[in-house]
Amino acid sequence: MTPIGFLGLGIMGTAMARNLLKGGFPVTVWNRTPERCDALVALGATRGESPRAVAAACTTTCAMVSDPAAARALVWGEDGVLPALVPGKSYVDFSTVDPDTAGEIAAAVTSQGARFLEVPVSGSKKPAEDGTLVLLAGGDRSLFDDLAPALSRLGQKALFLGPAGRGAAMKLVVNMIMGEMMVALGEGLALADRAGLAAGDLLEVLDAGAVANPMFRLKGPKVAAGDFGVAFPLKHAQKDLRLALALGDRLAQPLAGAAAANEAFKAARAQGLGELDFSAVCRAVAPTPRG
Amino acid sequence: MTPIGFLGLGIMGTAMARNLLKGGFPVTVWNRTPERCDALVALGATRGESPRAVAAACTTTCAMVSDPAAARALVWGEDGVLPALVPGKSYVDFSTVDPDTAGEIAAAVTSQGARFLEVPVSGSKKPAEDGTLVLLAGGDRSLFDDLAPALSRLGQKALFLGPAGRGAAMKLVVNMIMGEMMVALGEGLALADRAGLAAGDLLEVLDAGAVANPMFRLKGPKVAAGDFGVAFPLKHAQKDLRLALALGDRLAQPLAGAAAANEAFKAARAQGLGELDFSAVCRAVAPTPRG
Amino acid sequence: MTPIGFLGLGIMGTAMARNLLKGGFPVTVWNRTPERCDALVALGATRGESPRAVAAACTTTCAMVSDPAAARALVWGEDGVLPALVPGKSYVDFSTVDPDTAGEIAAAVTSQGARFLEVPVSGSKKPAEDGTLVLLAGGDRSLFDDLAPALSRLGQKALFLGPAGRGAAMKLVVNMIMGEMMVALGEGLALADRAGLAAGDLLEVLDAGAVANPMFRLKGPKVAAGDFGVAFPLKHAQKDLRLALALGDRLAQPLAGAAAANEAFKAARAQGLGELDFSAVCRAVAPTPRG
Amino acid sequence: MTPIGFLGLGIMGTAMARNLLKGGFPVTVWNRTPERCDALVALGATRGESPRAVAAACTTTCAMVSDPAAARALVWGEDGVLPALVPGKSYVDFSTVDPDTAGEIAAAVTSQGARFLEVPVSGSKKPAEDGTLVLLAGGDRSLFDDLAPALSRLGQKALFLGPAGRGAAMKLVVNMIMGEMMVALGEGLALADRAGLAAGDLLEVLDAGAVANPMFRLKGPKVAAGDFGVAFPLKHAQKDLRLALALGDRLAQPLAGAAAANEAFKAARAQGLGELDFSAVCRAVAPTPRG
Repeated sequence: MTPIGFLGLGIMGTAMARNLLKGGFPVTVWNRTPERCDALVALGATRGESPRAVAAACTTTCAMVSDPAAARALVWGEDGVLPALVPGKSYVDFSTVDPDTAGEIAAAVTSQGARFLEVPVSGSKKPAEDGTLVLLAGGDRSLFDDLAPALSRLGQKALFLGPAGRGAAMKLVVNMIMGEMMVALGEGLALADRAGLAAGDLLEVLDAGAVANPMFRLKGPKVAAGDFGVAFPLKHAQKDLRLALALGDRLAQPLAGAAAANEAFKAARAQGLGELDFSAVCRAVAPTPRG
Repeated sequence: MTPIGFLGLGIMGTAMARNLLKGGFPVTVWNRTPERCDALVALGATRGESPRAVAAACTTTCAMVSDPAAARALVWGEDGVLPALVPGKSYVDFSTVDPDTAGEIAAAVTSQGARFLEVPVSGSKKPAEDGTLVLLAGGDRSLFDDLAPALSRLGQKALFLGPAGRGAAMKLVVNMIMGEMMVALGEGLALADRAGLAAGDLLEVLDAGAVANPMFRLKGPKVAAGDFGVAFPLKHAQKDLRLALALGDRLAQPLAGAAAANEAFKAARAQGLGELDFSAVCRAVAPTPRG
Repeated sequence: MTPIGFLGLGIMGTAMARNLLKGGFPVTVWNRTPERCDALVALGATRGESPRAVAAACTTTCAMVSDPAAARALVWGEDGVLPALVPGKSYVDFSTVDPDTAGEIAAAVTSQGARFLEVPVSGSKKPAEDGTLVLLAGGDRSLFDDLAPALSRLGQKALFLGPAGRGAAMKLVVNMIMGEMMVALGEGLALADRAGLAAGDLLEVLDAGAVANPMFRLKGPKVAAGDFGVAFPLKHAQKDLRLALALGDRLAQPLAGAAAANEAFKAARAQGLGELDFSAVCRAVAPTPRG
Repeated sequence: MTPIGFLGLGIMGTAMARNLLKGGFPVTVWNRTPERCDALVALGATRGESPRAVAAACTTTCAMVSDPAAARALVWGEDGVLPALVPGKSYVDFSTVDPDTAGEIAAAVTSQGARFLEVPVSGSKKPAEDGTLVLLAGGDRSLFDDLAPALSRLGQKALFLGPAGRGAAMKLVVNMIMGEMMVALGEGLALADRAGLAAGDLLEVLDAGAVANPMFRLKGPKVAAGDFGVAFPLKHAQKDLRLALALGDRLAQPLAGAAAANEAFKAARAQGLGELDFSAVCRAVAPTPRG
């Protein structure tokens, strides 16, 4: 079995590469800052010299970087993978990018004769470590099927959604719903507070009913305590709302609730909350201090 | 032990009175349409002659009717309970009413020297039957404490929230959040559809992540199938949004997300969907047929 | 010619009664604070003892007070006009009230056998003084026609809109549009400022184009200068938006733009701007200080 | 005096070039479809062979095309003007483009040593013919000053707003306000209709008051009559709202009213109204037929 290449060892990538190792897959790793490879090498991974060298050495190469620019650089940049993706090779991008970027990378890889799969993930650090991500795949169906054993180490669930771009679109839809729900929670907490109701009582009632969900359970008490320690930065949540609205605009789908939520997130940015956790939108919708 | 009076035997009241009987409490029942008492009498309940007669015979009288007008009629109407609520008596109203109505009934009852508790409930038919409602109490704290054994037969959880009106306010806050979430679901389904994503895939992803909740799990597949069989009528959900917004207006709390959701529900009413389930708002936000 | 009665001598009522006097109509005036009658008496008006006494002495009695409660008190209060409104008498209410109040006053007056006309006005102090108000009449058509000579002294234009309540509804529609336009102006000024454009340049461009209007011309420079000296209090503008939305709710007419504008006005109230001019909503939509 | 070059002879460009001719300026014209030059040549204009040939022959070359792609093609396309814009030459772009496009064209032209001015215009066919446009200039101040005699033939007013991009930004702000006002008019007409008020009465009241404006006066009666003959296409109005919101997003300026208006325009597009006049948004906000 040739090793699986893995490019990008941030919080997410490191956890995912480790789970592949634990699953018995040989892994060749590379990261722009080479020291981030050390821990995985200590666990048995091989160190790669460059993205292109990794792609040349491995049948399947995976990537997990933080934004579209970084994802593009891995493909087209100096020492990028593209020239190495000859027929017989496969490239799997776990990064979250917009549908257009996903489509362009797919076109470039497949025009080389290699196979491509985008797999943006739903879930952050903890599910990555636990191997319980939800994997939103788009691109080459045969590659998705071939990778089933590896993907099963990374996620509790993997869905194949169609051509490249569908995974990115699904991620935007899910994050749009999440953003609207966070605004709903913020408005509920604000109204409760003005009406003399304790935040804890509201959260308890919510958690006992039909709308109970892990996000309210996790974030609700933190919001009530004014703790906006960052798990998912507000500016990124607003960016996802903006991209979802742009998708709706292109498709002529009105999204009045999402538009209102987006304005609430923008108001939060205008108030300097962009670097906090996205739950800080709850502070922006409660314009005067709660006492 | 004197029996507990129970006025109003609709779907909710019947289930609740039955749970009291099952719990060993003697119950005296009354309903405007007397035949609705038969099944409970068959289970051991006593038949009451009128609201006032029930209140005269029982130390504690409960009510569960469908709207503020019916709740007021039970108190002030012909044969209403008010004259019978002398010191030593207690009146417990489970009906969902606005905070003003709750406050006026509370004032009338307590001015007679009796004790009052409003207990709007979160949950509908199934939790009522299972005794797993969430009970949102406001009014007389000592009465809430005294009733703990009976309330524990009706709900999984009972919260005492403060003076009369707080229970009604909590219910509005919860239903406001629920309405916003249903609009978010509808927008997500509509955007997914336009983007070529299957509703079932979106629902599966949602259910595997941080926003997973029983409402999406229950209603999502029905919405995708165009099944809007009524559990909670859309016109009532819109009324609750309107009342929540009115509460926010009185308290100077902006609620832009709820206002946008309310307009979506109003648009659904304008399209003739008011008598369907409140999840039919999802149809109104997807303006062209999904194919 | 019997005198015209005029009840309520605030800023608006005083100006209107004076215009009737100037037009050659004898006028009998009354005000809760009697000193406010002095100036008009000096111009030739007769002093009335009470609303009822005025209605008894005059064939036609007019009222101009500040809110529905005051309007109701003039009719049903101690010494109110109702018992004096026998057949042959007429009552004309210029006050701005909601459609329901207008309808109830109309029903009470006509059940006495008298004629009724609601005439809310569009325009404030200056047009009242200049006799250039726009008069929005609803109720008895024959009374509207009979009063043409007097109404022509008060307004540049008088429209008969149908049964009582239509005048109130028209006023709400107009003020709703006005509120939405003020929010549009505020957003435009805020975006221009962020984009490095001078407020004066934007106002000059607006005033040279298809959307040029007296309100932007008058209020724009004041907003840019932070001058929110009150002409029409913000809390009243928000109340009119709320009532317009309530009318839309009753009629199942979605009004998403007005709902968003209403939330902006509520946010302004939450920031303590409710007593300033309604143009202060422009400050609320520009969340950080403009520099 | 060397002639002024004029590229692009659509409805707007033809009217503007004709006004330059009438003002005594020699003009050299070019259009992609050459026959559109004939009428102007008959009036004395010289026919140009290509954009580059015109720019080579004229000290100052103007352009008026319909969108950013066409504006870019005139500069960078085959036979584009760029190589001819040597020091001493000037290029003036009247087209409506986004701020980024304006900035890129400005950078390209000035890097050649020529001067650049963007001059998007406020106003459409009629003001173009009458020479009463409002000219929103950004770029080179000295060029703006030198062109004063020519600009005065084209517009009633010309504002210099700063660096290139400011003209485009001003145009977006103005059109954003216009879009919000059109939605306000539509909601007002819809609510009036539901409340039993005639559209003509509402329009008359609006036109007599503080919000009276040429757009309501012109479009209101057409909307009431269901006449949406296109002057400014709805899809373009929605595009301007989208670009204004994108500008606000970049600058962290919340624009909740504009976002709600944008969703109304998107709903209109979803209903197939995109090719009609932008006033057709009024039909989309009145979801059921008015009778």
